[in-house]
Amino acid sequence: MNEKCAVVGIFGHEEASKLAYFSLHAMQHRGQEAAGISSSDGKELHTIKKRGLVMRVFDEAKLKTLSGGSAIGHTRYSTAGDDSILDAQPVFARYDLGEMAIVHNGNLTNAEEVRNKLIEKGAIFQTFMDTENLIHLIATSEKDKLLGRIVDAVERIEGAFSLVFLSRKKMFAMRDRHGFRPLSLGRLPNGGYIVASETCAFDLVGAEFIRDVQPGELLIFEKDKKPKSIQVFEPTPKHCIFEYVYFARPDSNVFGQSVYQTRKNMGKELAKVQPIEADVVIPVPDGGVPSAIGYAQESGIPYEMGIMRNHYIGRTFIEPTQEMRDLKVKMKLSPMPGVIAGKRVIVIDDSIVRGTTSRRIIRMLKEAGASEVHMRVSSPPTTDPCFYGVDTPDKENLIAANMTTQEICDYIGADSLAYLCEESLLKSVNSTQDQYCTACFTGKYIV
Amino acid sequence: MNEKCAVVGIFGHEEASKLAYFSLHAMQHRGQEAAGISSSDGKELHTIKKRGLVMRVFDEAKLKTLSGGSAIGHTRYSTAGDDSILDAQPVFARYDLGEMAIVHNGNLTNAEEVRNKLIEKGAIFQTFMDTENLIHLIATSEKDKLLGRIVDAVERIEGAFSLVFLSRKKMFAMRDRHGFRPLSLGRLPNGGYIVASETCAFDLVGAEFIRDVQPGELLIFEKDKKPKSIQVFEPTPKHCIFEYVYFARPDSNVFGQSVYQTRKNMGKELAKVQPIEADVVIPVPDGGVPSAIGYAQESGIPYEMGIMRNHYIGRTFIEPTQEMRDLKVKMKLSPMPGVIAGKRVIVIDDSIVRGTTSRRIIRMLKEAGASEVHMRVSSPPTTDPCFYGVDTPDKENLIAANMTTQEICDYIGADSLAYLCEESLLKSVNSTQDQYCTACFTGKYIV
Amino acid sequence: MNEKCAVVGIFGHEEASKLAYFSLHAMQHRGQEAAGISSSDGKELHTIKKRGLVMRVFDEAKLKTLSGGSAIGHTRYSTAGDDSILDAQPVFARYDLGEMAIVHNGNLTNAEEVRNKLIEKGAIFQTFMDTENLIHLIATSEKDKLLGRIVDAVERIEGAFSLVFLSRKKMFAMRDRHGFRPLSLGRLPNGGYIVASETCAFDLVGAEFIRDVQPGELLIFEKDKKPKSIQVFEPTPKHCIFEYVYFARPDSNVFGQSVYQTRKNMGKELAKVQPIEADVVIPVPDGGVPSAIGYAQESGIPYEMGIMRNHYIGRTFIEPTQEMRDLKVKMKLSPMPGVIAGKRVIVIDDSIVRGTTSRRIIRMLKEAGASEVHMRVSSPPTTDPCFYGVDTPDKENLIAANMTTQEICDYIGADSLAYLCEESLLKSVNSTQDQYCTACFTGKYIV
Amino acid sequence: MNEKCAVVGIFGHEEASKLAYFSLHAMQHRGQEAAGISSSDGKELHTIKKRGLVMRVFDEAKLKTLSGGSAIGHTRYSTAGDDSILDAQPVFARYDLGEMAIVHNGNLTNAEEVRNKLIEKGAIFQTFMDTENLIHLIATSEKDKLLGRIVDAVERIEGAFSLVFLSRKKMFAMRDRHGFRPLSLGRLPNGGYIVASETCAFDLVGAEFIRDVQPGELLIFEKDKKPKSIQVFEPTPKHCIFEYVYFARPDSNVFGQSVYQTRKNMGKELAKVQPIEADVVIPVPDGGVPSAIGYAQESGIPYEMGIMRNHYIGRTFIEPTQEMRDLKVKMKLSPMPGVIAGKRVIVIDDSIVRGTTSRRIIRMLKEAGASEVHMRVSSPPTTDPCFYGVDTPDKENLIAANMTTQEICDYIGADSLAYLCEESLLKSVNSTQDQYCTACFTGKYIV
Repeated sequence: MNEKCAVVGIFGHEEASKLAYFSLHAMQHRGQEAAGISSSDGKELHTIKKRGLVMRVFDEAKLKTLSGGSAIGHTRYSTAGDDSILDAQPVFARYDLGEMAIVHNGNLTNAEEVRNKLIEKGAIFQTFMDTENLIHLIATSEKDKLLGRIVDAVERIEGAFSLVFLSRKKMFAMRDRHGFRPLSLGRLPNGGYIVASETCAFDLVGAEFIRDVQPGELLIFEKDKKPKSIQVFEPTPKHCIFEYVYFARPDSNVFGQSVYQTRKNMGKELAKVQPIEADVVIPVPDGGVPSAIGYAQESGIPYEMGIMRNHYIGRTFIEPTQEMRDLKVKMKLSPMPGVIAGKRVIVIDDSIVRGTTSRRIIRMLKEAGASEVHMRVSSPPTTDPCFYGVDTPDKENLIAANMTTQEICDYIGADSLAYLCEESLLKSVNSTQDQYCTACFTGKYIV
Repeated sequence: MNEKCAVVGIFGHEEASKLAYFSLHAMQHRGQEAAGISSSDGKELHTIKKRGLVMRVFDEAKLKTLSGGSAIGHTRYSTAGDDSILDAQPVFARYDLGEMAIVHNGNLTNAEEVRNKLIEKGAIFQTFMDTENLIHLIATSEKDKLLGRIVDAVERIEGAFSLVFLSRKKMFAMRDRHGFRPLSLGRLPNGGYIVASETCAFDLVGAEFIRDVQPGELLIFEKDKKPKSIQVFEPTPKHCIFEYVYFARPDSNVFGQSVYQTRKNMGKELAKVQPIEADVVIPVPDGGVPSAIGYAQESGIPYEMGIMRNHYIGRTFIEPTQEMRDLKVKMKLSPMPGVIAGKRVIVIDDSIVRGTTSRRIIRMLKEAGASEVHMRVSSPPTTDPCFYGVDTPDKENLIAANMTTQEICDYIGADSLAYLCEESLLKSVNSTQDQYCTACFTGKYIV
Repeated sequence: MNEKCAVVGIFGHEEASKLAYFSLHAMQHRGQEAAGISSSDGKELHTIKKRGLVMRVFDEAKLKTLSGGSAIGHTRYSTAGDDSILDAQPVFARYDLGEMAIVHNGNLTNAEEVRNKLIEKGAIFQTFMDTENLIHLIATSEKDKLLGRIVDAVERIEGAFSLVFLSRKKMFAMRDRHGFRPLSLGRLPNGGYIVASETCAFDLVGAEFIRDVQPGELLIFEKDKKPKSIQVFEPTPKHCIFEYVYFARPDSNVFGQSVYQTRKNMGKELAKVQPIEADVVIPVPDGGVPSAIGYAQESGIPYEMGIMRNHYIGRTFIEPTQEMRDLKVKMKLSPMPGVIAGKRVIVIDDSIVRGTTSRRIIRMLKEAGASEVHMRVSSPPTTDPCFYGVDTPDKENLIAANMTTQEICDYIGADSLAYLCEESLLKSVNSTQDQYCTACFTGKYIV
Repeated sequence: MNEKCAVVGIFGHEEASKLAYFSLHAMQHRGQEAAGISSSDGKELHTIKKRGLVMRVFDEAKLKTLSGGSAIGHTRYSTAGDDSILDAQPVFARYDLGEMAIVHNGNLTNAEEVRNKLIEKGAIFQTFMDTENLIHLIATSEKDKLLGRIVDAVERIEGAFSLVFLSRKKMFAMRDRHGFRPLSLGRLPNGGYIVASETCAFDLVGAEFIRDVQPGELLIFEKDKKPKSIQVFEPTPKHCIFEYVYFARPDSNVFGQSVYQTRKNMGKELAKVQPIEADVVIPVPDGGVPSAIGYAQESGIPYEMGIMRNHYIGRTFIEPTQEMRDLKVKMKLSPMPGVIAGKRVIVIDDSIVRGTTSRRIIRMLKEAGASEVHMRVSSPPTTDPCFYGVDTPDKENLIAANMTTQEICDYIGADSLAYLCEESLLKSVNSTQDQYCTACFTGKYIV
């Protein structure tokens, strides 16, 4: 499962595109396929977008052409195998009010319906991104100012969206009424502003966290003014709980809480509700580290580094020899025999999607001499695909949608397997009310 | 001066995209910046377009994804320094009748006006290509079939256009009423059809030339049918005479005549109207070769290879030493002292644009020992920019717009300089009537 | 400080070069500049070596040309800035007994003297690697068999060397009398043999650890025979203790012990001898992780992930803005405010070389809100350069050679700083007698 | 057939390596596989050599590291498929007199014998280049100065060699007694000197031709002195006649004559001895151009450009469709139907090696409508391989070694085929006595 993208907006800094660049780099984990930045120098917009990691897409010369005091940026996770058309963002358009560019994290659930209506009226679609709907809705809105048009446009779309819009003079940031995907507001050291999917971007560029953009809120950034806020929709929070489970960087704060702390809480809860006797607690790196630390602290069983992550992974195209089993996993992860041999091992991971990697890891641990391997997962069984901006396999490929926990345990070869239940998960994230989307664990989608 | 692009369309061949690929390669001289192909498998269109030479943009795997029995392709010459947005073709769009892709060679003279009208009605423009107008005109036309809409669309645009349209089931080829840019129709060995900017593409893929697409003609290609022809506009031919002078490959036939033969004719005419006593006739390679052969044959002065063209040109970023003059030209062209030393040399080139290269060549020939250098140019002085699809410098950079022939002669350091006059040029191309655009020599633009 | 290289030898496997390839990949952390493999098919040797990571140097086609049942390989750390001559290994030579190839981990202390003598006798040196001495010594030895010549050659060299030699029919592995650098022997699943700098290579290719090659031992591998051992020198072990401190992969066993366990021991010892009151223990990733776990276990202070390592590091050439301090470190490491803010933090690292990185990390932790930062280092102050195969800065750049611990503490901005003393370090590695080289901490070099 | 390499030496210019770079670029046609330059700053030598074209191997930064007032350079043609060891030049060595670097154009006929003797005495060979012999011979010579040693060394080798040696203070240039391969001496504009395989290098860097280095002559370049000459061997010229036929650039002078003029002479002789009635004379570009011009001038039959050479050749990996015959040739060469159709065509090429390309060209011309195709070759049948530095196919692959002229004519599908006889060839190059090696046409090798 993969987050589909990250967005950033910088307003009021003479090196806006450079700050966007570093912010995107900090959020590279949210999308590695393509990156793009649009800037405005007050007179016109400049856009560069390309396949590749942020660092490869941009260089000093390119950032210089992205001149001006405001900029928006995007990194993208590849969802379609089809690379025929460059589906990268920002989406740029000239329209009757001038020029605009948009970046979007999320997924519109009524995209097809909206597109069909637009096409009926003569619109043409040049990409396969649902974001293209938005520029059409803005261009064809009957309001006479961009602000009104943005409101008009977002009222016609449904689903998950954290958006940043750039015009020649202004910048806008908007989150859907449920606040599915994160979006935070920060202050730049020189007085300008930043909005970004994750606060780890703030830390890198030296910005200070102010607050989250609210679900349903639209922020307007204008020169020499404080950001103006319009609450377009009544907020009914349904934050993506998987941001805590896996997507967000542990050093980020999302939805008002530290990602690292919530992960540790999950580990602690897991130790409470799924205890087992063992000699060591080890994480599957890097995802399982915080919850394994939490599990160890709660259970009193020593935390150890039982699996090492290799930093020179890359991709090899060399076929292994006949005797080399599980090469793909072993090139990335290797067991620490001194920690594992003869031990009863609790191995902590954040989730099990298809089950194949878990199976290889457990085989690897057993071959390294573990006497028992107990797998503990710091989230509930992943049973349902996401329609709000996360790349999930089809239901038939989600192992928990097709097997019982015992069957999964047998398949992966563990001595025992247990998940964190939904209730404990919600407790870990301090959810006092129904403010999280847990559809990937429950199938209960917000309509 | 550079041709801005080449187009190709293949209909009715199971490896359509492969034939488009080879055709584009044959026409690579018409545009080196970007290349693209769209194919249709009858159900959907597939498009790949990218910066780079045809050979680098495509590989076997990519051509396989461009499946289906019809394909259109494009190579592009860089006109803008701005590479922010990928302005490559085919332009692809989903619209109310399904999917379409367009390739365009030429330049629309009312593009801005059309665009402004479209934008007023809510259209958005995502690129800086005037071709984008066409898909909007087609999408918003009130005709209910694509054919009617194409007619509708081309009636609203002015300027130069050789177009190929691809839909899921059909292909269309269209030329403006003046037939500014070339477009020929051929038959594939297996019975399918090809349209291409130049016939050199036919030769590479083994196709047979049928005839030129007529000025103002629209050809419709449908499965298992002969191409249907509609004469949308009354043809009033104004073929770009510069195709003969410089752009087209000498092994192509354009506007019904052999490019090589017309160039030889220019050389012969030049010998008749601009004779001079000399020992050798030499071309500036490769452009001047055919007219130098013609000049030599007519004048009886021996043809020699007096300047060699180096095949390992590439671009060096190494600064020359102080003593190395004219390095840039010398890396590409080098004089043959044995041919030149002590001789009265007639050097033939196809045109003089800025004059700087001619100046360097003449200095080089003098340094190699030429006793006299007489420059003869196989076209009239280039005095005016082109608005019909050719990349020309501004008027202030066209030397002939700012100096008399004698001044140019002095500037380039020749012992004499003479051009072919317009009348002789037209004679060379067998123009019995007023069927060529010579605006770049005369400033008389067709409105 | 950096390990200079890794070596591997494979004998008796039909895909010998492939196993060498994967082994080198597992030891990539020991050298990233160049990689090479020589194989023997019984009739001739094949060699490929090139600048770059193992995965980039080789592909399936290249490994196929490295045919035969035995192979040796090498990865190299760049020591000289000079890339004029390709100083990569294996060093290959044709000589009077046929062909040979050598790989070498270590550093010869009498290289210049040996080279000068060889040159006096007419030898030529084509590279700047001291390994080139060895092939000359072998070629000019008066012994008539390769075995005798190898013995002859190693008797003339001094310093650190873990060597593997390949001839058409045999393979030899040799370690200097002190066993400075590691070298282990393993059994391949099909009955062949492997020698490698680290046992992590064994794990990847499915080999089983047999024992270390002994200091001063020469192993001879011949077809269908068990490896024959000759004790060329009386063993006087002086293993490089820095392999435990930093170089070796934590999942390897070197010098007979688990690297991870010895690192944890160092952390425990550190907690005993350098205790301090604090709220959390955090490692500088990845080097400090095992000792931080040890420190936490011994001290009872909770272990936390207080600094995150970013996996998308790469190199950026973009200049930071004025406000962005410590960018280089921050792109790689970022603090976890939730763990650190308001806390008394013990931060564990394996060593301090120049002090600049420690200074930035501590500043970063303070800015993230740490109330106190106590740095604990799991090795003694690094005061002296290494002459046995490790890349160390000059003495003037080693901070501990020029400042007292209190001065370093002030420089890096810590609230307290303490190192592990030599005695405790030796205890951590279970050294009952004087079997380790600790010259980099003591300046006591073995002559 | 391909020339194996080019050499250059620059002495007495503060940007020596830059001049070497441009000189190598001018001689790129003599070897495209690898390029290298060594320079001396008076204290030490600097060497960079790498696979690739000259322009790709070097950049401004690399040329800067090649500092000093003297430099030698080399481009290399790939002779072995084996790219395991980097067999590029200059060959560099440290030896008892200091440092030296050598570049070599040619082939030593007693290389194996010399190598075996050297190996017997304890030498090691690290590459597969016969040039490595030379540095060993110099290093082991008993003379005490480099000059004496070079003389010593070249007295022990046989075969073809044009050599340039670089030491810290001096440069030496040497040609074998037969002067097989060319080597010319020139004066740099600032007073320094250049030696190079072809004079086209002089023209690019602004140097003035002085004279050829004589067969058997050794030139010594020292600071602030004129080059000193030693005639080491009695000169017995046997210049490679194929330099005139094909290798050398037409704008070069080799062996004292203009390459272009000698090629034109060959064409004229061919017209005299192998006349035939026809309508046009066309060259196979680019090799056949000068002789076709000569043929046309002598015969009075018009010269035409009947085949066009495509400048965007590159390599495609796309398989042609079934209907596309002779694609490989057609991508490079295309016929000019207007010139050829219905005509009796004489097509001129410099040589026929395997016959496959000629066969395709003639088929192409016939398909383009030629009524007759008469092939005329401006050299005798190539029947024997070269041992003096040219890359030739084995005898079984030389069509003229295995077929009569009539059989070849039938195979290539020409209406007639005729070669230039040896006598006429010698006449073309003004050979008054037996001063050329024609072994590739006659099998008469100089022992």
